[in-house]
Amino acid sequence: MERRKVGILGATGMVGQRFIQLLNHHPWFEITWLAASDRSAGKTYGEACKWKLDTPLPAKIAAMTVQPNVPEGATGELPKIIFAALDADVARELEPKFAAAGCAVISNSSAFRMVADVPLVVPEVNSDHLSLIETQSWRKESGGYIVTNPNCSAIGLVLALKPLEERFGIESLFVSTMQAVSGAGYPGVPSLDIMGNVVPYIKNEEEKMQEEVGKLLGSLSGNHIEMLDAKVSAHCNRVAVEDGHTECVSIKFKKKATREEILAAWSEFAPLDSAHLPTAPDQPVEYDTAVDRPQPRLDRMRGNGMAATVGRLRECSLLDWKFVVLSHNTIRGAAGAAVLNAEVLALLGKLDPLKKAANSPVAVGA
Amino acid sequence: MERRKVGILGATGMVGQRFIQLLNHHPWFEITWLAASDRSAGKTYGEACKWKLDTPLPAKIAAMTVQPNVPEGATGELPKIIFAALDADVARELEPKFAAAGCAVISNSSAFRMVADVPLVVPEVNSDHLSLIETQSWRKESGGYIVTNPNCSAIGLVLALKPLEERFGIESLFVSTMQAVSGAGYPGVPSLDIMGNVVPYIKNEEEKMQEEVGKLLGSLSGNHIEMLDAKVSAHCNRVAVEDGHTECVSIKFKKKATREEILAAWSEFAPLDSAHLPTAPDQPVEYDTAVDRPQPRLDRMRGNGMAATVGRLRECSLLDWKFVVLSHNTIRGAAGAAVLNAEVLALLGKLDPLKKAANSPVAVGA
Amino acid sequence: MERRKVGILGATGMVGQRFIQLLNHHPWFEITWLAASDRSAGKTYGEACKWKLDTPLPAKIAAMTVQPNVPEGATGELPKIIFAALDADVARELEPKFAAAGCAVISNSSAFRMVADVPLVVPEVNSDHLSLIETQSWRKESGGYIVTNPNCSAIGLVLALKPLEERFGIESLFVSTMQAVSGAGYPGVPSLDIMGNVVPYIKNEEEKMQEEVGKLLGSLSGNHIEMLDAKVSAHCNRVAVEDGHTECVSIKFKKKATREEILAAWSEFAPLDSAHLPTAPDQPVEYDTAVDRPQPRLDRMRGNGMAATVGRLRECSLLDWKFVVLSHNTIRGAAGAAVLNAEVLALLGKLDPLKKAANSPVAVGA
Amino acid sequence: MERRKVGILGATGMVGQRFIQLLNHHPWFEITWLAASDRSAGKTYGEACKWKLDTPLPAKIAAMTVQPNVPEGATGELPKIIFAALDADVARELEPKFAAAGCAVISNSSAFRMVADVPLVVPEVNSDHLSLIETQSWRKESGGYIVTNPNCSAIGLVLALKPLEERFGIESLFVSTMQAVSGAGYPGVPSLDIMGNVVPYIKNEEEKMQEEVGKLLGSLSGNHIEMLDAKVSAHCNRVAVEDGHTECVSIKFKKKATREEILAAWSEFAPLDSAHLPTAPDQPVEYDTAVDRPQPRLDRMRGNGMAATVGRLRECSLLDWKFVVLSHNTIRGAAGAAVLNAEVLALLGKLDPLKKAANSPVAVGA
Repeated sequence: MERRKVGILGATGMVGQRFIQLLNHHPWFEITWLAASDRSAGKTYGEACKWKLDTPLPAKIAAMTVQPNVPEGATGELPKIIFAALDADVARELEPKFAAAGCAVISNSSAFRMVADVPLVVPEVNSDHLSLIETQSWRKESGGYIVTNPNCSAIGLVLALKPLEERFGIESLFVSTMQAVSGAGYPGVPSLDIMGNVVPYIKNEEEKMQEEVGKLLGSLSGNHIEMLDAKVSAHCNRVAVEDGHTECVSIKFKKKATREEILAAWSEFAPLDSAHLPTAPDQPVEYDTAVDRPQPRLDRMRGNGMAATVGRLRECSLLDWKFVVLSHNTIRGAAGAAVLNAEVLALLGKLDPLKKAANSPVAVGA
Repeated sequence: MERRKVGILGATGMVGQRFIQLLNHHPWFEITWLAASDRSAGKTYGEACKWKLDTPLPAKIAAMTVQPNVPEGATGELPKIIFAALDADVARELEPKFAAAGCAVISNSSAFRMVADVPLVVPEVNSDHLSLIETQSWRKESGGYIVTNPNCSAIGLVLALKPLEERFGIESLFVSTMQAVSGAGYPGVPSLDIMGNVVPYIKNEEEKMQEEVGKLLGSLSGNHIEMLDAKVSAHCNRVAVEDGHTECVSIKFKKKATREEILAAWSEFAPLDSAHLPTAPDQPVEYDTAVDRPQPRLDRMRGNGMAATVGRLRECSLLDWKFVVLSHNTIRGAAGAAVLNAEVLALLGKLDPLKKAANSPVAVGA
Repeated sequence: MERRKVGILGATGMVGQRFIQLLNHHPWFEITWLAASDRSAGKTYGEACKWKLDTPLPAKIAAMTVQPNVPEGATGELPKIIFAALDADVARELEPKFAAAGCAVISNSSAFRMVADVPLVVPEVNSDHLSLIETQSWRKESGGYIVTNPNCSAIGLVLALKPLEERFGIESLFVSTMQAVSGAGYPGVPSLDIMGNVVPYIKNEEEKMQEEVGKLLGSLSGNHIEMLDAKVSAHCNRVAVEDGHTECVSIKFKKKATREEILAAWSEFAPLDSAHLPTAPDQPVEYDTAVDRPQPRLDRMRGNGMAATVGRLRECSLLDWKFVVLSHNTIRGAAGAAVLNAEVLALLGKLDPLKKAANSPVAVGA
Repeated sequence: MERRKVGILGATGMVGQRFIQLLNHHPWFEITWLAASDRSAGKTYGEACKWKLDTPLPAKIAAMTVQPNVPEGATGELPKIIFAALDADVARELEPKFAAAGCAVISNSSAFRMVADVPLVVPEVNSDHLSLIETQSWRKESGGYIVTNPNCSAIGLVLALKPLEERFGIESLFVSTMQAVSGAGYPGVPSLDIMGNVVPYIKNEEEKMQEEVGKLLGSLSGNHIEMLDAKVSAHCNRVAVEDGHTECVSIKFKKKATREEILAAWSEFAPLDSAHLPTAPDQPVEYDTAVDRPQPRLDRMRGNGMAATVGRLRECSLLDWKFVVLSHNTIRGAAGAAVLNAEVLALLGKLDPLKKAANSPVAVGA
């Protein structure tokens, strides 16, 4: 099968690098276009990028010329699938241009996540929300659209919450995070701020977690999303960890749940046909029985970095239950989330053809 | 004024070292006796101890001979004031022997904290509980007694809570901690477990926090403590920080409180006559208005390591208010807490004479 | 092809865990026996071991029963190939027993490295030294023998040095190391000793580096090794890195070398038939042209953790040239080194049959 | 005694903050003027500065208005003593303007260190070089001049070397550094670059160390400095340490030295009248006999951060001796060095009066 051509916006940043790492040998997608800010455009990717991953920068990618961050700037053909790893301000300006140019913009930015007709999707949680793209004006005009994935701190959490919401209903929850520095990009967090330290503040992060959980666990009703009616209170902290966000959760259900029922909800959670989605983990939520897990250094790479690990399920003296959830913030929480969104869109026939809304699923990967 | 002679049990450990650091130039106390386990007894302190603090080991202390961990083992005179920095198992066996031998045992151990007639005290919070010592059987027989300070993770918290409890009443609270490695002693946490990592578990810590808060904020009623009737739910985590425990708190009051009222409660909190207590900080709870404070590396040494710093007061979508509190875990949270307990006992006349229960305050430091 | 049965001595430690990780899917070897100290013997491996790697403990291994650390303790058949990850003191006692029992002991310990008839081997550097096993008394009696690999800090260094020694001759060198904490095992280095710190001392390490380099680069002359006649001065330091030893080298050659000649010596260094050795890296020494490389976090996993990375070649104002070399200390520097030794022994026919010295290479992997 | 008014150029950076910390309660100097770049000028210091030290920002300083970085920009009186903590590029432009305006510019920048008529001084090492200021053209015209202190990595080293050079003569030396992140300023080193990592490169650092050592240990001959004729080879590395540079040294002397002679040279090294210089440590070079010292976390604050600690003296198999030296890079290695230079200049009468070259020592502090 021929691989679909894809481009990466914001290719030189931390999430852009993860896109390259995850897409380099992807069976369905082929990187044919890389774009970054004016500072980088015109250089080879190898010159423009300070590669920070522990797998080598692929030679073919290093030799590609970085394009300007605009649809018309594309030398040769602009791919119709664009993975976007832009800061919110830049995304707010650029992503609509690519959607208007007929591209499927698979965005990791916060810019449009809470916009009513933009799907905010984690495929295991709410892939039905993807149908919102058909209501976007770009879609009607050019076939293009914008799909977003949530904040890195929300993804692991909603993976753990979704099977609980389905079975017990969530009334309220606390979450206190300990987030890795890679979530702030590069150069990001100065070493003097975080070595041997904790910073109990990440700008806008608590607000994002609270509202994104509501939309992700909300229900599609016709052409809009009914937010989940649950109280969510988040405390967000930065800690001296390279990769992997750890989150302490206390939760109250609408319906009483036993320990066994909760563990069953997690272990039986398999909403996707992972065999046919290259990036989907076999088990999206893994429970570790050890008393001191999950831990970012040991558990972030489960499911090739796409699984969330839960642990320490125990009773809460204030709400019902307490547990800890961990996930890799730049794989599951960013680039991998976007790639999985694209894979599901491919399965749904939303990537090809783009010119008109497709209704019949294309047998991708069959 | 002549300084009172004091001894240190468990002198070679991390808290033992902090006792030496804090007592070395103390105006009221003089270290005349050091004891440690059999492995160390008989050696000089300089030989026995792997000194881990960044101030020099005092030469006079280095030359002292470490005594066995038993009252009868004392070469020369056994001091009547014993600061104890023992593991709980050892404390459970040894501390009563020293109390029975007529010593005021100022303990940092968890062994007796929750025993009904043992005061669990943070002087700014509940110094009236100290009167419980008069009900101890050792006190009646030998004049000796045991006084304890709380767990390192509970101390900063109750300092922040006490002025709020006084004014608004606490109904429930959620606390999620990020605790420093020094809290686990030496060698303590292996570097492979914590570098670039988070361990979301500290043995017995959540239980200790929950129950100790209840006793500390409880009220003395005749000869026993009425526990505070509030729900407390704790999540305890170890992070890659040397010193300083950071805690995220959500809290619900019995009586509504405004932001200004809460800030006033903290800023006006001055329960001790700090001018007459060498180790008491001028302001036990300091509020920092910066959006990203408190931080352990920057704030742990406020008030010479004895002040708690609070910050980030904001509304909670689930309970009433959220904030962050930080305190130094081996100074305010351990050795300094015990020294301050001893200072208050001295002011109350409970250190001298020990043979009979003293009722009239001795004018120490006047 | 049937896989050869192998055992692991000291299976629960850090290097033991790496052996399991590297051998679990090895095409030539199959783990059938695990042994550890009395504390662990009798338990399942899953119970006995605190698994510290970021790949999951294989379920099959977790279920195996840990055997006592003695040849006669083997339940079922004792494998004839034993990977040993023991502390030097224990190795000194146990490894000869296994050799005497007819086992090929592939040791990572320092106990016998400098013994005259024990080969100290890095296959890319001095695989001809392996013939020393034929002179061992165990070999003659039972077929068993001991082969060792060097200290983790010496391996990366000699990989970088070997092609230079071949072409230019080494007269003297200075090496200053910055070594990862995993080199000290688990629990190993206390976090309070190394977080935000440097410890400029590792017991016996400088001596080991200096003498092992001499033997590794020495020449086999009949039945003994002529040490390399070069002055080596080592400074060894522990730094806050999980995995990967970084070493700064200044070197003086017997014959002048240009920058291009040195780079060519490294890039052309391909002493092994890596296509036929599963663990051998394609390129054992990789030069990185970036001004700030190699770095442990970014480069340790090159060649699946088996390649050494060199960088920063520049003139030395005192000797001839300066450079930096980095290698993974528990893969290339320990378990991987031993596995590669075993692979070469297999190719040489020294693993099968063990009862008599084999002279004809067995076509393994062909 | 009235304190002299001083100003700080580059007051908001890491070294600027250390100047404020060290000068805030200085008995001889009083901060009356703070300047920083256009971005900060006009704001209060509290607004302009992200304070990163663990002692509180003094309230009086926080309230001061930051002035523009130019002599004519001074609101009120421009102090005649200026401590400069500027990047080299900025220093190259601005420091001469202040010297021309009649200020004694006590500079921490590298811009003019190697200029022939600018003294590069560590008072314990070469305070006689200060007389070079009299040859500066600014001095003749306005009374102003520039004095510099060395790079943070050179200072600890030359403190250890000076007593050895005096007694044995230095022929050649290797030095391999492990430098703290604070040396790169703020934001400086990104956390993703250094957490769990080593960066074996610091721009221009090896060149600076090599040439500055030559000038510092050089001898004043009339109006110029004869560089020390010794070969120096430096390897410079960045490690995950907040403060404190650790350096491994191998050294060859012109005259043989015994261990005892070297230890005596260090312990007897007391070139300054420390009783009359507030910032001078009693013992500039302290030898620690423990096998694993010095260590940055434990030893950097000796002598209030102004002493260098040496340790691990042992024979070198290549040169004569090996040792480790450590010093605090932003106190001894930067702001403290400059303050001590100013104190010595005060003692020499070079601070007052500035209009003409003073020959008679002023009895400061007498």
